[in-house]
Amino acid sequence: MPNVGPHETVLLLAPDRKRYLVRLTPGARLHTHHGWLAHDDLIGKPLGRTVRTQLGEPFLALEPSTYDLISLLEREGQIVFPKDAAHILLRLNVFPGRRVIEAGTGSGGLTLALARAVMPTGRVYSYEIRPDMQERARRNLAPWGLLDVVELKTRDIAEGFDEADVDAIFLDVREPWLYLAQARAALKGGGILGALVPTTGQVSSLLEGLRHHPYGDVVVEELLQRTWRPVADRLRPADRMVAHTGFLIFARALAPEDAEAWWAPGQRRLMRRLRAHEASTASTDAAEEPDPPDVDEMTE
Amino acid sequence: MPNVGPHETVLLLAPDRKRYLVRLTPGARLHTHHGWLAHDDLIGKPLGRTVRTQLGEPFLALEPSTYDLISLLEREGQIVFPKDAAHILLRLNVFPGRRVIEAGTGSGGLTLALARAVMPTGRVYSYEIRPDMQERARRNLAPWGLLDVVELKTRDIAEGFDEADVDAIFLDVREPWLYLAQARAALKGGGILGALVPTTGQVSSLLEGLRHHPYGDVVVEELLQRTWRPVADRLRPADRMVAHTGFLIFARALAPEDAEAWWAPGQRRLMRRLRAHEASTASTDAAEEPDPPDVDEMTE
Amino acid sequence: MPNVGPHETVLLLAPDRKRYLVRLTPGARLHTHHGWLAHDDLIGKPLGRTVRTQLGEPFLALEPSTYDLISLLEREGQIVFPKDAAHILLRLNVFPGRRVIEAGTGSGGLTLALARAVMPTGRVYSYEIRPDMQERARRNLAPWGLLDVVELKTRDIAEGFDEADVDAIFLDVREPWLYLAQARAALKGGGILGALVPTTGQVSSLLEGLRHHPYGDVVVEELLQRTWRPVADRLRPADRMVAHTGFLIFARALAPEDAEAWWAPGQRRLMRRLRAHEASTASTDAAEEPDPPDVDEMTE
Amino acid sequence: MPNVGPHETVLLLAPDRKRYLVRLTPGARLHTHHGWLAHDDLIGKPLGRTVRTQLGEPFLALEPSTYDLISLLEREGQIVFPKDAAHILLRLNVFPGRRVIEAGTGSGGLTLALARAVMPTGRVYSYEIRPDMQERARRNLAPWGLLDVVELKTRDIAEGFDEADVDAIFLDVREPWLYLAQARAALKGGGILGALVPTTGQVSSLLEGLRHHPYGDVVVEELLQRTWRPVADRLRPADRMVAHTGFLIFARALAPEDAEAWWAPGQRRLMRRLRAHEASTASTDAAEEPDPPDVDEMTE
Repeated sequence: MPNVGPHETVLLLAPDRKRYLVRLTPGARLHTHHGWLAHDDLIGKPLGRTVRTQLGEPFLALEPSTYDLISLLEREGQIVFPKDAAHILLRLNVFPGRRVIEAGTGSGGLTLALARAVMPTGRVYSYEIRPDMQERARRNLAPWGLLDVVELKTRDIAEGFDEADVDAIFLDVREPWLYLAQARAALKGGGILGALVPTTGQVSSLLEGLRHHPYGDVVVEELLQRTWRPVADRLRPADRMVAHTGFLIFARALAPEDAEAWWAPGQRRLMRRLRAHEASTASTDAAEEPDPPDVDEMTE
Repeated sequence: MPNVGPHETVLLLAPDRKRYLVRLTPGARLHTHHGWLAHDDLIGKPLGRTVRTQLGEPFLALEPSTYDLISLLEREGQIVFPKDAAHILLRLNVFPGRRVIEAGTGSGGLTLALARAVMPTGRVYSYEIRPDMQERARRNLAPWGLLDVVELKTRDIAEGFDEADVDAIFLDVREPWLYLAQARAALKGGGILGALVPTTGQVSSLLEGLRHHPYGDVVVEELLQRTWRPVADRLRPADRMVAHTGFLIFARALAPEDAEAWWAPGQRRLMRRLRAHEASTASTDAAEEPDPPDVDEMTE
Repeated sequence: MPNVGPHETVLLLAPDRKRYLVRLTPGARLHTHHGWLAHDDLIGKPLGRTVRTQLGEPFLALEPSTYDLISLLEREGQIVFPKDAAHILLRLNVFPGRRVIEAGTGSGGLTLALARAVMPTGRVYSYEIRPDMQERARRNLAPWGLLDVVELKTRDIAEGFDEADVDAIFLDVREPWLYLAQARAALKGGGILGALVPTTGQVSSLLEGLRHHPYGDVVVEELLQRTWRPVADRLRPADRMVAHTGFLIFARALAPEDAEAWWAPGQRRLMRRLRAHEASTASTDAAEEPDPPDVDEMTE
Repeated sequence: MPNVGPHETVLLLAPDRKRYLVRLTPGARLHTHHGWLAHDDLIGKPLGRTVRTQLGEPFLALEPSTYDLISLLEREGQIVFPKDAAHILLRLNVFPGRRVIEAGTGSGGLTLALARAVMPTGRVYSYEIRPDMQERARRNLAPWGLLDVVELKTRDIAEGFDEADVDAIFLDVREPWLYLAQARAALKGGGILGALVPTTGQVSSLLEGLRHHPYGDVVVEELLQRTWRPVADRLRPADRMVAHTGFLIFARALAPEDAEAWWAPGQRRLMRRLRAHEASTASTDAAEEPDPPDVDEMTE
């Protein structure tokens, strides 16, 4: 394994498990409340090693993973959490060679994960309306050589996307239902749309929008990550956890002429049951409400 | 977008959302309880289209995603669920060009996901002791052209791994703590170890094992996936969910001489607090038990 | 401890953990797919004993708990799950001597739990529009001597409640927001309103309604119950769980003239932050959305 | 509804939702960082009213519920959270007239909830080894008139309990498996044992202990409480939640001579499947591990 060169970025893990991303510069020092570290103690040496501050406190030097980078990059506002980013990559079927659109770029955390997944031959087209956000994303992507894979576009996506026949689109915007026509125009047939929204009202608006555009196989889900204390003889979950980041919605792009057959399958079945129910009873009691069948998730 | 050729495999989504993986053969039919479909209605046509059975029931023809493939491949015994596979890929920092070891191969679901993530230049070395399982995995990987990326090895991993300086190792075996020395020998410095076990006793055994080998930055976590009914005006979670698949454990390979500083940080801090506590009280009452601080997970 | 008398109801637990509620009748038999049991083997004997079918299969005879009764009573439609019933009892501050209104009665499961909590001196006023439901509830309550504690009223609650100054009201109806004025009129100052609804749209409608009536200290929450397999050396959660029963909403009745100060505290703070945010930026980007502070739940 | 008298205790809810328990004393003031309140503004007035500090900040005056009291009482160390207390009350089948043992008393939060559930004719026998803890519990119970219902005993429960034929016992001690014989001796046949432990190792130890004493119908479960932000048009879960308080274990006391039939049903079935499995294969592969059937929880 090659040693770490100057100007590479390493992850330093402090004794209290705080994590630092550090770009190595000959002669420089990292100052922490555990004391300082000389960059020169790292340059030209392998990773997985412990380096010590002048106070003797141990820091672990590691290669930063994509998971670390998403968590630690310079940012403003909400980020896509790693637990969600991982799920999005698999749901969007992103792999080397794929062409993917993302809007908005935000701080570039998901952009980085997408770029690392499609490189070297794929492409991420990342749209963002705010130039300052885009500039930050550029700074976050540059050290990892990902600007060859990513096209950053400063644009209002209401105007549409430049690309066609892309494999997947991810909408991380406040009102994704406003851009469903634009997204459909850019997707290949059967291509995958994804979105992340924090509130249930936004989920309902997006589901309503998806009924009026050619999409099908709609999935709504949330991921909960529960960390456990890594202590063999006192094993238990951590006291607290993140209870909510957002709801994830995924759908497939359909041929427009076929869409009606696939619009809102839950809704159609619900309608069928409601009609059957109304025929059999005039009750308005809550205990009687028709129970729409669960969408059978394939993994269940 | 190219049309589907003969002998390609497509995903067919039935009106009841049941999913079928079908390898297209000119002249063949898919029989379902919604009627039959002619493969010739799909061959040479684009995806995202609806095809109908002779009874008029609509099926949606889609490109199968990695998420679909993991869920649908031919299998025996437990599989790694997509929610866990997605998280494992990100935690192991698997991306194009990486070299990764997996044991055991099982039905090849995670193997497929790893291979699609590291291709075209990376490599997955997948160890499995049972030849029949390995053969099934081979059948599951072949249609996707992934056997160029995967080396399937029929071997007891107690004998060690052939590779060195790999980026990550994933242990999906019953007693992963038995193979920590072998895994450390194969990993590069700072390389990432992952494991999946279903019971808490196994988690404790693995954590105990990790204290005696050069690993650090240990994380234990579980992922919960909650599906919602995709109905705009009656939005609610599905009635039931998968409550447990397994516990995920990750750790970083350390330089052996440095390991002691990083062994069981939780344990060391716990010891410190326990000592402080014991100094201040002689109680053995449960309500008094010292509360070890949570390991601060970076994403929190 | 007294032995079981004839005509008492016992819980029988089968070897497969299926549970039966059985009213003991001299000479009668319980037929199961494990064989039959003679009631006379139970009458006049203590509980906690094993009785065997003619095939030798063991059944455990137990006193049915309220938890068992809620789960096993004769019913139609949705019931309030025990996990939610337990939480409702504590949140509504129901204890001996309290006066509580419930609507609708449904199958009487929650009615039974409320009655057992307020007896002998308290009172449950249970409203239900459907006479057939009420009749079933009466049959479910009678064997436990609870009809002295419960007043069953067949009534549309839109017409209001007969009682005043009650300690708590629980609304298990489809559109609880329609009855907030009626509920406020029946509650004492500071009395507690509770409701259970399955969908997020209903939660929003109820929250919107609570803004226009004198209620404060509003809480929305859900309870998840995760069962573990009770096996010492292979401890792990059960494979599946109930993912959703309903959302619970609680609020306190305020003096009408004081209500405005307490209407929608979250909303007011949100407004403040939104205004501050809008003053500082014209962005519409999702990553920028103001993050209203969590309502600090006292137990956290 | 009667007005609040002097020396009664009220709950004051601040504009930031912080909660204060205040015993009203003529002439006294409550000082907060929102200003001060005169107790005399509350004495002789109804509840559900807003009172204002000299700075004009509104506080809501409420009757404290058991839920509030558990959360707010003077304490040391861990408390039983309200979500767990509610579930324990229902699982232990505690209602007016019941006789219940609790050990240890701790700060008296669960004692208070048990006492309010069994009063006026029932009884709570609460054992605690530490006199200082017991004294605090006494102070927490006295204002609510519950010392008539509770017998506080300063005792090491290893010596056994004074009572016999009690309806339920709750063990909130570090090593509950040490007291299973003592608990069985005090319980009536079919009586209910409950315990709360924070770690999985403790759960396993308790399950192992239950195999060697006459208990059956063993249940292990955990409750998760997820709070939502009460904002109609931006409905979403709170950002963070309590991820873990403890595991709850419940079991029924059996007749000693019958116990073997009910020991460890999961274990026996597991054994059966393991034997069947071992007969059919010699594999040691993880993917092959026999999957013991879930214990069918009656509420599912």
